[in-house]
Amino acid sequence: MSSERLIYLPLGGAGEIGMNCYVYGYGKPDEERLIVVDLGVTFPDMDTTPGVDLIFPDISWLEARKDRIEAIFITHAHEDHVGAVGHLWEKLGAPIHARAFTANIARRKMDEHGYSEQSVRTVEAWPEAVTAGPFTVGFVPISHSIPESSGLVIDTPAGRVVHTGDFKIDETPGVGEPFDRTLWAQVAEPGVKALVCDSTNVFSDHPGRSEASVGPEIEKLMKAQPGMVVATTFASNISRVRTIAQAAVAAGRSVCLLGRAMRRMIEAAVETGILDDFPKVVSPEDAKSIPRENLLLLVTGSQGERRAASAQLANGKYMGLRLKEGDTFLFSSKTIPGNERGVIRIMNQFSEMGVDVIDDSSGLYHVSGHANRPDLKTMHEICHPEKVIPMHGEHRHLREHVKLAGENDYPGVLAVNGTMVDIGAGQPVEFIETGRVYLDGRAHVGQFDGIIRDRIRMALNGHVTVTLILDEENEPLGDPWCELMGLPETGRNNADLVETLENALGGWLQRADAKVLRDDETLEKDLRILCRRTTENEIGKKPEVTVVISRLS
Amino acid sequence: MSSERLIYLPLGGAGEIGMNCYVYGYGKPDEERLIVVDLGVTFPDMDTTPGVDLIFPDISWLEARKDRIEAIFITHAHEDHVGAVGHLWEKLGAPIHARAFTANIARRKMDEHGYSEQSVRTVEAWPEAVTAGPFTVGFVPISHSIPESSGLVIDTPAGRVVHTGDFKIDETPGVGEPFDRTLWAQVAEPGVKALVCDSTNVFSDHPGRSEASVGPEIEKLMKAQPGMVVATTFASNISRVRTIAQAAVAAGRSVCLLGRAMRRMIEAAVETGILDDFPKVVSPEDAKSIPRENLLLLVTGSQGERRAASAQLANGKYMGLRLKEGDTFLFSSKTIPGNERGVIRIMNQFSEMGVDVIDDSSGLYHVSGHANRPDLKTMHEICHPEKVIPMHGEHRHLREHVKLAGENDYPGVLAVNGTMVDIGAGQPVEFIETGRVYLDGRAHVGQFDGIIRDRIRMALNGHVTVTLILDEENEPLGDPWCELMGLPETGRNNADLVETLENALGGWLQRADAKVLRDDETLEKDLRILCRRTTENEIGKKPEVTVVISRLS
Repeated sequence: MSSERLIYLPLGGAGEIGMNCYVYGYGKPDEERLIVVDLGVTFPDMDTTPGVDLIFPDISWLEARKDRIEAIFITHAHEDHVGAVGHLWEKLGAPIHARAFTANIARRKMDEHGYSEQSVRTVEAWPEAVTAGPFTVGFVPISHSIPESSGLVIDTPAGRVVHTGDFKIDETPGVGEPFDRTLWAQVAEPGVKALVCDSTNVFSDHPGRSEASVGPEIEKLMKAQPGMVVATTFASNISRVRTIAQAAVAAGRSVCLLGRAMRRMIEAAVETGILDDFPKVVSPEDAKSIPRENLLLLVTGSQGERRAASAQLANGKYMGLRLKEGDTFLFSSKTIPGNERGVIRIMNQFSEMGVDVIDDSSGLYHVSGHANRPDLKTMHEICHPEKVIPMHGEHRHLREHVKLAGENDYPGVLAVNGTMVDIGAGQPVEFIETGRVYLDGRAHVGQFDGIIRDRIRMALNGHVTVTLILDEENEPLGDPWCELMGLPETGRNNADLVETLENALGGWLQRADAKVLRDDETLEKDLRILCRRTTENEIGKKPEVTVVISRLS
Repeated sequence: MSSERLIYLPLGGAGEIGMNCYVYGYGKPDEERLIVVDLGVTFPDMDTTPGVDLIFPDISWLEARKDRIEAIFITHAHEDHVGAVGHLWEKLGAPIHARAFTANIARRKMDEHGYSEQSVRTVEAWPEAVTAGPFTVGFVPISHSIPESSGLVIDTPAGRVVHTGDFKIDETPGVGEPFDRTLWAQVAEPGVKALVCDSTNVFSDHPGRSEASVGPEIEKLMKAQPGMVVATTFASNISRVRTIAQAAVAAGRSVCLLGRAMRRMIEAAVETGILDDFPKVVSPEDAKSIPRENLLLLVTGSQGERRAASAQLANGKYMGLRLKEGDTFLFSSKTIPGNERGVIRIMNQFSEMGVDVIDDSSGLYHVSGHANRPDLKTMHEICHPEKVIPMHGEHRHLREHVKLAGENDYPGVLAVNGTMVDIGAGQPVEFIETGRVYLDGRAHVGQFDGIIRDRIRMALNGHVTVTLILDEENEPLGDPWCELMGLPETGRNNADLVETLENALGGWLQRADAKVLRDDETLEKDLRILCRRTTENEIGKKPEVTVVISRLS
């Protein structure tokens, strides 16, 4: 007789890699009590979001149902899972639950936005659990590239759901808990309604490699280098950071950390007791007096980010340290698609200094934090769910993951952002409008507000300001003025473009009908069109135009 | 007693991959007679060159020495080698020499710019040669990913230089001449002063694979697919295009070509007799009535270019053809760094249609057109030059290539764009200012003109137009007007941003000193600063500002 249902609704992260935000609900349709899993960000790029600082999922749907939200759960402390908590928490208002390390990072973000740290509650690992309305949620340790990553066990009156979070199967992960098959088999034992599962590496056919394979290679490399070694990786990959630092010590090198994120992450890891065997580090000041062959710099900026330590070193010096011929720069990381240009730029800058750059192409110095295809299959088999719902992937990853599940006779449900799935039925039941919100300076800007579109247009086409003054009789006072920005100064036959434009617009005004001159709207439109057409005729481009009409009265 | 010297001067292509342009000179210093090898373009990107159409090398140095230029030689018909001939030829004025296929493409470009096709002269392969002042230049066939690629044998009174052009060592290249070791050994026999050598794949450690390895794999794939197959590759890779078409026929599929570049390249190849066994193709119109499992579309757009056939198919339909569930899209190509986002976008669009996308990750369906590290070593050994001068590479490639040459005791000379090398001495003798010129619409814009910088700033920061009218007494007529473009409409406390700005500027004007109000320059500067500061205070961003001051007189 129960009309209750258990629903799953991704608002971010399904159909893209980034800004994860998943909703589960239980109750009568449209009265479900809700929990939110992860509140992440994604990063802008010049092609589609110039000038934007961060990108959030559009959580209007949740905001409109704020009174039904029981709690927020954060699986791990990567920016694409926790990065939006400070920015969006006010719209949701529910308590945030996470394990100690993740909670430490989340609290720093809440603090930056002036919210009480109490809104973040630390949870121990499963079997401890949080009850939130009809949900009971436990954090099951799972291996990934940041400490204390967790899969969530979500119990409801309609059964158990397993939400893997980001994961890999790594039984020797260094820092952080090893993947524990026995534990996961226990979790699965009572039966799993749905496995909501990471899809990132579904196209990688070989079994994933353990974090433990990286250390010996880095140590070997470190010993062989004649000069200073500089290594970069994601600061949040505490295990890798430790591996690199330990390899340095084994190779007789002192370790110096550069970059705010690097220092902050190590601090959080030490504070939460995750990291108790990190080598003693030296300050940049002290590093300067250490012989190059005895020094390792561990720096931020593995993606070529312009303001990170790696880019600053590539530009010259940073904190008084400077690379030179005979030094080595190691990327213990992979380049995320879209970041290639930035990474290649710093590689070439180092090359110009005579620095040897070593990247991930050999496969020796980096392993992925996500489960590859065979490992995903293993996870399906361990959890033996009634259905698999792929998440954390672009459309092609989700689709391939559904196929992979099907190969083992697990029905897959392809649900991109905005697809509300009735988990019991294994079917979409509703489509919610979703999207992105841009953090632009301090403003939140909607994806379809036209603001970023205008910026892209100015970047592609340049901009002309046309100013016109009309007297009390609606007669133009002189010619209109034109000012260019982002446009060539001369057009055909080397004629001055501003002059050509002002002549064309002025001539047109002289011939313009009195009716047109009285009507701001028509006048503005006609001047814009003529300005665009004249510019196109001169230089082959149609600029964006702002027309300002002033009337004396 | 001879004070003549033989010089090498790269103006483009050394320190980057793209816009190749190399100069050789022979004669007394500053009186050398000159030849130019290749006149290529490179492509813009949103990060650094928004709105730009094409990028050329800055050839001012050559232009200033136009009377000393004997001839232009084009090694092959890729855009980064021949793309600028139509745009830049006027500045050089010398005859263009190329082999038949390359000449065909070059003539089309000259024709588009209204230049006589006679300026392009067809040359047969070595031992035929062109005499140009003190130079005698022969085109030696070499394998690459476009027909009739040639290395140049450049004979001078100071000896022989070998300029490889782009190449790989492929003894079974399909269309085009196989790499001929005996021929190259003959070329090297009299001794080679310098080997100026492609560096693109110096970081690829395995020997390159032959074009012939691709066909059987594509045929196998084609046979296994239940629906339509769509394949993309570089249109200029005639051999690959033929391989794909022949595989289709073997798999019982009709071939339909889509995209202007694809048809144009095939046309040029047929016209020049390179391609005489291309399967009969069907028109897009006829293709519509062919069962999907019997159809192959061969399309442009392997790099995800927005206007190419692949992107159009990904957006919906193209020429009446539409993909659907069960169809397959094959990238028989690699993604050039920087193009990942565009390629991934269309992959996901196809995924949404239910189309299976197969890319180069297996290594089965594409081989590179450039010599890998072991093949470069082979080339060094065949030519046995006095020195190796790496070209066609970013700084890191050139540097690594110098190292590779050194491993075999060939002295390497690292010469980036603008480095004039005395080939006899094997030393740089002068540094020339070089750079890039942007084609923007029809205008040529200098890299440092500030025009593109302004566009990038508008894209990052948005734009405000401030208009102010002052009367005959230098008193402001009302408040200044502000117009926003690419900026949020509201600031702090949801206040209207334009209103806030106009109030702030208006208030300041009321308090402004009469001296300031009289001086356009000061007034403009102060209004700009205040506008930027107020906007930053409101939304956390400093916009670009155009101030227009009008005075009634």
